[in-house]
Amino acid sequence: MSTEAEFLKNVAIFSGSAHIKLAGKLAAYLGLELSPISIDKFSNDNIEVQLGVSVRGKHVFLVQPLVPPTSDNLVELLLMLDIARMSGARSIHAVIPHYSYGRSDKKDAPRISISAHLVADMLTVAGAQHVISMTMHSPQVHGFFSVPTDHLTAHSVFVEHFRQQDLTNTVIVSPDIGNAKRADKLAHSLNVPLAVGQKKRISDDRVTIGSILGEVKGKRAIIFDDEIATGGSIVELVERLKFEGAGPISVAATHGLFLKKAKKRLDELDVTEIVTTNTVPVLKKRRPERLVTLDVAHIFGEVIRRTLVGESIGELFEFWPDS
Amino acid sequence: MSTEAEFLKNVAIFSGSAHIKLAGKLAAYLGLELSPISIDKFSNDNIEVQLGVSVRGKHVFLVQPLVPPTSDNLVELLLMLDIARMSGARSIHAVIPHYSYGRSDKKDAPRISISAHLVADMLTVAGAQHVISMTMHSPQVHGFFSVPTDHLTAHSVFVEHFRQQDLTNTVIVSPDIGNAKRADKLAHSLNVPLAVGQKKRISDDRVTIGSILGEVKGKRAIIFDDEIATGGSIVELVERLKFEGAGPISVAATHGLFLKKAKKRLDELDVTEIVTTNTVPVLKKRRPERLVTLDVAHIFGEVIRRTLVGESIGELFEFWPDS
Amino acid sequence: MSTEAEFLKNVAIFSGSAHIKLAGKLAAYLGLELSPISIDKFSNDNIEVQLGVSVRGKHVFLVQPLVPPTSDNLVELLLMLDIARMSGARSIHAVIPHYSYGRSDKKDAPRISISAHLVADMLTVAGAQHVISMTMHSPQVHGFFSVPTDHLTAHSVFVEHFRQQDLTNTVIVSPDIGNAKRADKLAHSLNVPLAVGQKKRISDDRVTIGSILGEVKGKRAIIFDDEIATGGSIVELVERLKFEGAGPISVAATHGLFLKKAKKRLDELDVTEIVTTNTVPVLKKRRPERLVTLDVAHIFGEVIRRTLVGESIGELFEFWPDS
Amino acid sequence: MSTEAEFLKNVAIFSGSAHIKLAGKLAAYLGLELSPISIDKFSNDNIEVQLGVSVRGKHVFLVQPLVPPTSDNLVELLLMLDIARMSGARSIHAVIPHYSYGRSDKKDAPRISISAHLVADMLTVAGAQHVISMTMHSPQVHGFFSVPTDHLTAHSVFVEHFRQQDLTNTVIVSPDIGNAKRADKLAHSLNVPLAVGQKKRISDDRVTIGSILGEVKGKRAIIFDDEIATGGSIVELVERLKFEGAGPISVAATHGLFLKKAKKRLDELDVTEIVTTNTVPVLKKRRPERLVTLDVAHIFGEVIRRTLVGESIGELFEFWPDS
Amino acid sequence: MSTEAEFLKNVAIFSGSAHIKLAGKLAAYLGLELSPISIDKFSNDNIEVQLGVSVRGKHVFLVQPLVPPTSDNLVELLLMLDIARMSGARSIHAVIPHYSYGRSDKKDAPRISISAHLVADMLTVAGAQHVISMTMHSPQVHGFFSVPTDHLTAHSVFVEHFRQQDLTNTVIVSPDIGNAKRADKLAHSLNVPLAVGQKKRISDDRVTIGSILGEVKGKRAIIFDDEIATGGSIVELVERLKFEGAGPISVAATHGLFLKKAKKRLDELDVTEIVTTNTVPVLKKRRPERLVTLDVAHIFGEVIRRTLVGESIGELFEFWPDS
Amino acid sequence: MSTEAEFLKNVAIFSGSAHIKLAGKLAAYLGLELSPISIDKFSNDNIEVQLGVSVRGKHVFLVQPLVPPTSDNLVELLLMLDIARMSGARSIHAVIPHYSYGRSDKKDAPRISISAHLVADMLTVAGAQHVISMTMHSPQVHGFFSVPTDHLTAHSVFVEHFRQQDLTNTVIVSPDIGNAKRADKLAHSLNVPLAVGQKKRISDDRVTIGSILGEVKGKRAIIFDDEIATGGSIVELVERLKFEGAGPISVAATHGLFLKKAKKRLDELDVTEIVTTNTVPVLKKRRPERLVTLDVAHIFGEVIRRTLVGESIGELFEFWPDS
Repeated sequence: MSTEAEFLKNVAIFSGSAHIKLAGKLAAYLGLELSPISIDKFSNDNIEVQLGVSVRGKHVFLVQPLVPPTSDNLVELLLMLDIARMSGARSIHAVIPHYSYGRSDKKDAPRISISAHLVADMLTVAGAQHVISMTMHSPQVHGFFSVPTDHLTAHSVFVEHFRQQDLTNTVIVSPDIGNAKRADKLAHSLNVPLAVGQKKRISDDRVTIGSILGEVKGKRAIIFDDEIATGGSIVELVERLKFEGAGPISVAATHGLFLKKAKKRLDELDVTEIVTTNTVPVLKKRRPERLVTLDVAHIFGEVIRRTLVGESIGELFEFWPDS
Repeated sequence: MSTEAEFLKNVAIFSGSAHIKLAGKLAAYLGLELSPISIDKFSNDNIEVQLGVSVRGKHVFLVQPLVPPTSDNLVELLLMLDIARMSGARSIHAVIPHYSYGRSDKKDAPRISISAHLVADMLTVAGAQHVISMTMHSPQVHGFFSVPTDHLTAHSVFVEHFRQQDLTNTVIVSPDIGNAKRADKLAHSLNVPLAVGQKKRISDDRVTIGSILGEVKGKRAIIFDDEIATGGSIVELVERLKFEGAGPISVAATHGLFLKKAKKRLDELDVTEIVTTNTVPVLKKRRPERLVTLDVAHIFGEVIRRTLVGESIGELFEFWPDS
Repeated sequence: MSTEAEFLKNVAIFSGSAHIKLAGKLAAYLGLELSPISIDKFSNDNIEVQLGVSVRGKHVFLVQPLVPPTSDNLVELLLMLDIARMSGARSIHAVIPHYSYGRSDKKDAPRISISAHLVADMLTVAGAQHVISMTMHSPQVHGFFSVPTDHLTAHSVFVEHFRQQDLTNTVIVSPDIGNAKRADKLAHSLNVPLAVGQKKRISDDRVTIGSILGEVKGKRAIIFDDEIATGGSIVELVERLKFEGAGPISVAATHGLFLKKAKKRLDELDVTEIVTTNTVPVLKKRRPERLVTLDVAHIFGEVIRRTLVGESIGELFEFWPDS
Repeated sequence: MSTEAEFLKNVAIFSGSAHIKLAGKLAAYLGLELSPISIDKFSNDNIEVQLGVSVRGKHVFLVQPLVPPTSDNLVELLLMLDIARMSGARSIHAVIPHYSYGRSDKKDAPRISISAHLVADMLTVAGAQHVISMTMHSPQVHGFFSVPTDHLTAHSVFVEHFRQQDLTNTVIVSPDIGNAKRADKLAHSLNVPLAVGQKKRISDDRVTIGSILGEVKGKRAIIFDDEIATGGSIVELVERLKFEGAGPISVAATHGLFLKKAKKRLDELDVTEIVTTNTVPVLKKRRPERLVTLDVAHIFGEVIRRTLVGESIGELFEFWPDS
Repeated sequence: MSTEAEFLKNVAIFSGSAHIKLAGKLAAYLGLELSPISIDKFSNDNIEVQLGVSVRGKHVFLVQPLVPPTSDNLVELLLMLDIARMSGARSIHAVIPHYSYGRSDKKDAPRISISAHLVADMLTVAGAQHVISMTMHSPQVHGFFSVPTDHLTAHSVFVEHFRQQDLTNTVIVSPDIGNAKRADKLAHSLNVPLAVGQKKRISDDRVTIGSILGEVKGKRAIIFDDEIATGGSIVELVERLKFEGAGPISVAATHGLFLKKAKKRLDELDVTEIVTTNTVPVLKKRRPERLVTLDVAHIFGEVIRRTLVGESIGELFEFWPDS
Repeated sequence: MSTEAEFLKNVAIFSGSAHIKLAGKLAAYLGLELSPISIDKFSNDNIEVQLGVSVRGKHVFLVQPLVPPTSDNLVELLLMLDIARMSGARSIHAVIPHYSYGRSDKKDAPRISISAHLVADMLTVAGAQHVISMTMHSPQVHGFFSVPTDHLTAHSVFVEHFRQQDLTNTVIVSPDIGNAKRADKLAHSLNVPLAVGQKKRISDDRVTIGSILGEVKGKRAIIFDDEIATGGSIVELVERLKFEGAGPISVAATHGLFLKKAKKRLDELDVTEIVTTNTVPVLKKRRPERLVTLDVAHIFGEVIRRTLVGESIGELFEFWPDS
């Protein structure tokens, strides 16, 4: 404990402008306050960042989910990393609660970028020596980083949430095959069966659900995905589930972005609740009704604590034991 | 065409000791012969490689699938790359028909290696400037490479093979969720439905199939996977399919290793045929009965040709348009 | 000439979304058309780029000034570079007519980033093997790049423009000491004297001119700077010059951004003309009255041509012989 | 304080052969002695260096200004860095009081080297993890380093020196525009006006002063530059200032090299005093008369102290707030 | 001492599967036990490694000589390094008692690999920050590593062993010129003369001894080499020595591999004793009769201890003072 | 041949200031002239280099042996490499006829630098993509380079020279064990026996020859070494050989530096001839009497020619087949 106190004396946590509230909670978990930082734009739209306290010899944690405006937030984070690196920090940790570029993890088409790898490289070159993130699009995104990376999961908070409900005759539904393993883990922990949608993407914002593998008729369905952006897939899947005779329906996802028409779409939808974590900040006017937000700040805080004192954090990881 | 001839004059193709036959066919597709190479072991078990012709100023292609003895074959390939690099080759291309380390693409457990990334880095450091491979374990493995990588697919040869058969009342079955997208693509091209097994791995060599998502009763089933090693999963799945009332059953996989008890297991199995490609060499005594081997040498050869003359090879790639 | 034709066959020029018009003119200078490209945003605000033609074996030129929205344009360029690199381009050239991050070329305060270096590193890591830019904030910015960089100047087009005017009793005025050398070169070429303002920056958008070194009373003044963003410095300097008895007054700068209040400020100013180049796109509604735009596309085009055929381009460079 | 004592136990300071006296003073400031080192040349003119004590696990500071014989001193420093790196030092700090290669910070002509960047890279590759230097030629030189760099200033010692003098009717004169900002800071701190010479370089050793911007007539002038090498510029400027009616005249510069004809030139010059710091060693026979040497060893010593205990050193930096 | 205890608390020592016994002795020297590790092969012959305890914040030592099966042992070590690196170890040390690839330290022929350098690079890229090895093939192999490397010698244990014998009229014999310096050092320490064989290699396994430089007639001979693999050179040399009238004959070498026909060959040989160290594990059935094994675990253990507490280890090194 | 002509059109050969005569001969072998270059020192002793013609798109060869003043010549070469790299050369080749730092190829003592590796790294970082050198101190020096390196030998010219002499009853004598293999090769080619001195180094400049292995009595002796610096070893060895009854005696070495007292020492020595190559420039006043200089410019020229057209140069290499 006194070792921990000693370590904490040499810690500085800075938040970019993306999600100061989460950063503050995470710092509070450690009994710390956020260090001051000034972030602005020059008149020519260049971003300027200044860290408000010396980081020489300090363990520096920089908190920034890659959420809209994503490019600005990414550049902010790169600048923060560069400053920490060039100002003599002892160690530099990028805490990225939502690594949105993880979605670009493979070649969907010729001559596109596997941006999940490129952005990981940018972060490393700028100065990140350790990355802490949660529920990246696929487990392989972990492997795009060439520095130690803690890929955390919100699994435990979802399990805790749903265990408090009546799970008789319930099925976990993954909107598509890509996410099915993660949904399968939740199903397994809740001791309920799994069903999987066969999503066909028509455009970035439009999908259809070709069919559903597994039994859903007459069952309560909990849709489980990694990210809700505009809610397009969810709407399709809810409709399909109803058509197949399922109901009532809940929706859950780790990262709730609720962009563009999401609020309107979800508010009109016949679902019991929409459950996400607080990895992503949600403006009041964008919050869907019936939204339940689960707090994950303590998970990040605990990983930071264990990083500092050198304890194992295996049990907080997102592992993939069945593949 | 004369540009092509000019390019071919400056090409040297070498085969490691893993699969000389495939390398030879691939060279023959281009109208070339394999360049001489000497591979041996010193008395202390160190591998020694000598390229038999000068590679100064040449475009060098090194063919080596990572098949058993995998460590020896990997070290051979690293040495070949190093020699080409340090001997002044103009460009260096690693042709790895089966990138077996792709299977280690995520953290299944704490404190293991995402070896698919490590081995990719080793190849790059040793000298690979371009990698050509086929059906790597997951589409994300592509992203572990930091040099241009052509991730090819045997999709076309499987489609061609099964289209010659009666596909009435047929279902494509993926042994597990991880491979389901690839199986879905085959199902789509053959215009038949998909079913997905829920594999639980008990040990490296033993799995059980928890249940099957999708309709298989009374249907002819084509099991489709990326790799057959010891055949453990296949045996389980065939039994489960029979239990569910499916049949007759075919088995297909891009990479057929047929290790350990595979031949015995598969020979005793009630399946119509076992279809693989020739990415992996199979010793006569290990060949299962009813094995059908589809040739893919022309796909590799064509990619090399287009690489040399600078033509697009998009259509030979393994893309993932639906994710 | 036939060598040139042969090279051009293997060239692909792509424009990011920042300044398609300039890119088009530059391509036209070479007798080429821009290659197709698709740039979009996913629903989660991630940028997606797809190059529309194969770049395998091609010399690829990617045109993108770092102008507002600067972060988006920077990320676009990084993705374009990554795609070219990972798709096997023969050589990759970033054409950045306005490198706005050059302004952050030194430590103005503790714990800030010398972003001009960081962004240069990002571009290199993403894939840039050669950079072509114009009038970067200081001559030292050139040295932040670790790949061959052509630092071009618009000097010749400004000289040509002002030589057509009556330069009797004229003085070139640099708004501050930092830009004085560049202004001195123009003064030298036009054979007129130089004066230098002593700018004090109060905030990013507000400056005062402490005093003016050199004689301006009763003289026609041509203010010469590298960039006009919101016009704040210009307004201050014009007022000061009038106070000191100078007039009439012209304004010239290589990069005309005209952001925020710039149009209003400049339209209200008593100046003869505002002369910039077309390195930066200007929306119609932001164009100040009396704006004269000098074309520099041919300079970029000529550098590309000489790069391809291996001719010296020394005379197009911005050199600093007097320091 | 006890932390500091603990840190100092693990410190080793070595001096190359360039300026042992300054290194010794700097060590003394910290209550330490220089660690033994042996530097020699083999009969074939190769330099050989041996560190005299183990550096395993130590914080190593290597002191070496890049002064004549510059190439030998640079190679010595590279060897010292390499030894520290390969012998397991915990951290490696290059203390370079005069970074003479900073003068090559831009392209004065085609096909020259921006050596300030190249030498910075060499130092980093050899092992420097942190650089401490003073008054590099331009503020941008800071940005050529890719490791944390403390760019110190002798501003405070010059201010202290001149404040003891009568500054009525005094003007600070920068020999050229390039150095004007630094001179402007001194002028500002001393609350006197600034004038700027327009230097034209005829050869490396010969310049003319085209004209002087700002009022000097009848004023006491303090010429302020970063480096005095052979004194060529100073002679020209003094003559010009006298021609313009200025006087008496003092000369000040951070780095006093006094090479070749410098002593003779300066001794014959009608100036009150020549003020430099002790960043550069001066042989007795090369010392000009009227030389006043200001000690800066405590500034370097203090930076080392703060580096070890992790205190901010912002106030010792050379910042450029007005640009 | 209390510092040492503190350091040891943060140490984890893992052994690959090559030589667990030596690793255990080495750990015991430090009062530690080996940390648990699981090493296996997947059914497709890929190696899988899992470290059994958290290494976050720990000093990690990985013990693995590169002995047969060399490729497997090398890949094991690379995986161990990668895991330590990506799991946040504080420092990572590769302890390689026998670096067999050191034998490939020069170009014996065109188009071969200087594998001693390649393997060193692989180890570094995988994560080694410090290498500890013993008696590498030539002193220059040390220089192939780009991380701190401790090149230890078993000189002291051989001296101690032979000093207990009657050395009257004894000569040390190096089998070839390449090893002569090392033999010369032993001769010097034992105060006896040196003789050198002129080995001609016919094949990897067959050599002839052209002649012997130096006097051997009527003398007791101690053959001293770095490695005994199949014993081919030893047999030739013993025969030649006998032909020249020498006798009795002892054989000594740091690394005793005893591969293939070695036991049979050596057992049939008329030599007094065969002396090696325990850097290499020897299966019971491969142990030659008359084998004397000298323990060197304490040397490795002591180097680890001094590394942790930052003491000099110069006296344990293999230096080459006479060259 | 026409391909060759085409390649030569795109070649530029520059000489540093170390050995313009050799560079000129080498260029002449290819039918080319040296390209203009300007090398000077600034008044502060910094080296400045300017290449006199554009190298954009050219194959650039930079010729510079590392001879006294070695540090200056090394820095010159680094600057030349940097310029070529940053000016867009197509390929960059460092031709270093004498790589003097090769002598520092191992740890002779604790806390020294293996400078042969460091300097190789410096050259690579500065821009060398290919190195051509001759008779480096040991064959392992080749392996310190991480770019393709041609390690040439003057063996053929020495063989040709001595074959014209009467070799009856002749012995080749290596001054020490380290060089014995190279001497053995000459002995083998000349079909004469070998003897080896046991050199003990007292200081850098003083050695004693402990004894001579092998028969020399009554024989003509050809001493063969890699480098003659001050001639200290040679004098000792000649005396020892005479004491042992050998004579007459010739001296041969690839690199003849003849520094300090060398001329005097050698002129007073009773030797028949002193044979070296022209890898090192020798001032007239330093030339020993009886010096025979063998030309090797054609060997370097031929390697350049073959590099350009992509022919094998194996037979010009220094290989080490017997080790």
